[in-house]
Amino acid sequence: MIYLDANATAPLHPAARAAILAALDEGPANASSIHAAGQRARARLDGAREQCAAALGCTPRELIFTSGGTESDALAIRGAQPGRVVITAVEHPAVIGACKQSGAPVVRVGVDGNGRLDLDALDAALPGAGLCSAMLANNETGVIFPVEEIALRCRARGVPLHVDAVQAVGKLPVRLSELGADYVAVSGHKLGGPHGIGLLYVRRGARLTPLQIGGHQEEGRRAGTENLAGAVGLATALRAAAAELPETAQRTAALRDRLEAAVRAVPGARVHGQGSPRLPNTICATFDGCESEALLAALDLEGICASGGSACSSGTLEPSPVLLAMGVEPSRARGALRFSLWSGNTEAEIDRTAALLTGIVARVSCRG
Amino acid sequence: MIYLDANATAPLHPAARAAILAALDEGPANASSIHAAGQRARARLDGAREQCAAALGCTPRELIFTSGGTESDALAIRGAQPGRVVITAVEHPAVIGACKQSGAPVVRVGVDGNGRLDLDALDAALPGAGLCSAMLANNETGVIFPVEEIALRCRARGVPLHVDAVQAVGKLPVRLSELGADYVAVSGHKLGGPHGIGLLYVRRGARLTPLQIGGHQEEGRRAGTENLAGAVGLATALRAAAAELPETAQRTAALRDRLEAAVRAVPGARVHGQGSPRLPNTICATFDGCESEALLAALDLEGICASGGSACSSGTLEPSPVLLAMGVEPSRARGALRFSLWSGNTEAEIDRTAALLTGIVARVSCRG
Repeated sequence: MIYLDANATAPLHPAARAAILAALDEGPANASSIHAAGQRARARLDGAREQCAAALGCTPRELIFTSGGTESDALAIRGAQPGRVVITAVEHPAVIGACKQSGAPVVRVGVDGNGRLDLDALDAALPGAGLCSAMLANNETGVIFPVEEIALRCRARGVPLHVDAVQAVGKLPVRLSELGADYVAVSGHKLGGPHGIGLLYVRRGARLTPLQIGGHQEEGRRAGTENLAGAVGLATALRAAAAELPETAQRTAALRDRLEAAVRAVPGARVHGQGSPRLPNTICATFDGCESEALLAALDLEGICASGGSACSSGTLEPSPVLLAMGVEPSRARGALRFSLWSGNTEAEIDRTAALLTGIVARVSCRG
Repeated sequence: MIYLDANATAPLHPAARAAILAALDEGPANASSIHAAGQRARARLDGAREQCAAALGCTPRELIFTSGGTESDALAIRGAQPGRVVITAVEHPAVIGACKQSGAPVVRVGVDGNGRLDLDALDAALPGAGLCSAMLANNETGVIFPVEEIALRCRARGVPLHVDAVQAVGKLPVRLSELGADYVAVSGHKLGGPHGIGLLYVRRGARLTPLQIGGHQEEGRRAGTENLAGAVGLATALRAAAAELPETAQRTAALRDRLEAAVRAVPGARVHGQGSPRLPNTICATFDGCESEALLAALDLEGICASGGSACSSGTLEPSPVLLAMGVEPSRARGALRFSLWSGNTEAEIDRTAALLTGIVARVSCRG
């Protein structure tokens, strides 16, 4: 199997696997219990939070463990209780869903053909808003938004900023204290950690109404027995990703560029977001007259795992809203093919994929 | 260490540990991805749901995987969108918290000195309510409510019923199709599964507005990438618990009775809920002039892990609301000591605990 779908879920990092196993084997661990077993669990949980804070550049108390990226986005957006929300036109379904749930009116700020945010339109939309939500890196195209710049504009207008950093953390160096955001969502399984765990960064002093209340866990900000094995798995993956980042980013970018050159050489191909700063691992392409499903099925037959965009929207056959927002025609946006690499990919895998691509596109194209 | 706090969190079942590990080692698993790796994950997730359904006596589509018991309670109670909620006076903080979040007015139905629900008061409270929430077994006392009877009364008045079965599943035989409830909450780590995973049963046809929207996971009822390792861990633990239940329940009850005889022999002791049907593993006791904290600290020094009641409320120094509802004086309710056994406890552990108890109580009693 050639796995080129790391933006859907990244392979578990061996160090995270070992940490999870060690946590599971330490015996019953309810970090709220006051006996020795509970105190040991509490110390491990505190340690995991400190590791996460060190890797992300914030203080431990600014981090809340959640069940994943979707919950983190929801906790930030609904927890901020905004009157009106400004979001970008290319946000993840989790952000759009949380806005819907909040009941707040939503203003969407557009992007250009390269996926670059319209900062003038953002400026015009901000006054009077209760929250702005902008992703750090797009899950489909890998396009990186200038979040520090967005944060300055939000701050100038007194609007708190939530950043969905789910696709960025682990792939880019991220220092939360320097980002300027009030809330930041992180997901474990996107960066080599386990499923079912995530983080929400809440800047000290930022407003947060909890979504899940009951027990007093996470300082009353998220009730429910703490998922210790998940937390140490996430912390270990985060630390490993931060330590390995300079090297993996360079290596992955080189492989990505190699694959992207092959993609561009396919007749009728377009790579989206190419003119913008992007994640080092992501390619989003379309091909004249090709549908996502057919491309993916043909790749799958060759043992190559790729995706048509967000896994959260897979199987819907709708054109990608991200590509539509970038001005891509609906017929073309229905044919998105996303390759997202990870640190374990090899040159041989990339070359095999590249070698097969032109033939596959020719075969599945309805014009072919 | 002698672990007598299984109601806070149960030790992980070895079969669940093996299943979690196998799932982690199967490679990247986003069950929403349409390629071979995603389809394998989807098949495993479907299999886990079928195992859970078989163990619980319901259909797979009636089960939603959540992040745990607290989320399951919240999804049921807030998802039912009730106008007014009737709950018992001894519900878990997760149920009380979800009611608060729902904004619905709450009517509490009392219990007697043995923790038995006042069914006449329930009948009087039901008309016009949008939901009733009653636990199957109490987390502090182990007292079992007659849920089938409660369900009949709810049905007679057209009131949907949510059952918090977090402490019951794995300790009692539970067949959801026969319980008569519309919603039932289950937690993984209370029955030998991992933390960070739970189930909500939603009877076919019962109303449910999702709490977390975004991706289309769990048939649109709970967005967020599925926690496959958690789901198979929970499913395996549930199956193991069901298979081992007749034997473990008998064995645990015998050990519990042995320990309870020693508790009752301590001067000034009272065991709460003794006159009611109870879980086979739980003892809730108080002792004249003793505070929980002092008892727990003294037991902890001897390597014995017990609890003062709900781990979710530990460290608050408040008298147990459950004991207060049972008419126990506040000074006494501040001294609750809960022993909750699991299948791995031995006679030697119980005898050692029993032998130490009288001395500990005498030492920590402020009258001693």
